[in-house]
Amino acid sequence: MNWIDEVVFDADGLVPAIAQDWQSGRILMVAWMNRESLLETAQTGRAVYWSRSRKRLWRKGEESGNTQRVCSLRLDCDGDVILLTVEQQGGVACHTGRESCFFRELTGDASARQWQITDEVLKDPESMYK
Amino acid sequence: MNWIDEVVFDADGLVPAIAQDWQSGRILMVAWMNRESLLETAQTGRAVYWSRSRKRLWRKGEESGNTQRVCSLRLDCDGDVILLTVEQQGGVACHTGRESCFFRELTGDASARQWQITDEVLKDPESMYK
Repeated sequence: MNWIDEVVFDADGLVPAIAQDWQSGRILMVAWMNRESLLETAQTGRAVYWSRSRKRLWRKGEESGNTQRVCSLRLDCDGDVILLTVEQQGGVACHTGRESCFFRELTGDASARQWQITDEVLKDPESMYK
Repeated sequence: MNWIDEVVFDADGLVPAIAQDWQSGRILMVAWMNRESLLETAQTGRAVYWSRSRKRLWRKGEESGNTQRVCSLRLDCDGDVILLTVEQQGGVACHTGRESCFFRELTGDASARQWQITDEVLKDPESMYK
């Protein structure tokens, strides 16, 4: 069987794709891929996602310059999640200008839980999307 | 705003939840959470998911014993993905008896790509689900 046919896309033709920093192991972001974006990712070695909001291929970094070089591609046991390890150009994956989209951590006890911001902004988002 | 109300559940009331080993940084699995499972996870410090196939709460390890102690909970910038770092009891997260569900890696060049199994089975699945 062709490798792409082992991937189980959902009813919308998508799978979640997790981008993990190849060196630190930090999770940078989660986006979606359709068949076309996964094929292009494998062919070019650059992460290409499917933008659900813009309904088109999203070549990560096409606007911001923060491209992702793909080091490895993994598939989970059910075949419905992709894991990429990537080298993140510019050190910023998040549109807020932070390294990772997961910049909020749950803190506090049951009576006072909150999502606390743990990461600083490394790049001004205004300067990233001109 | 209450922390749980900052989580953006999809039309089915679910968010993807990524479990990452707190020590190695390895991605162990991806499952789904609804509001109830996320609340119970935060309250108990044990990972609780929503099983889409069984349509009920899935207290990870309830059958296999391979529970996950939660070290941290993170939320992404859009509020629609949860990242857990966990201590995986038994060292096995996958129902196949492997450490991680992401035990297949894409190898080979364009003419001969395949998902190659990179991880060994650590526990007999038969013995895990009695």
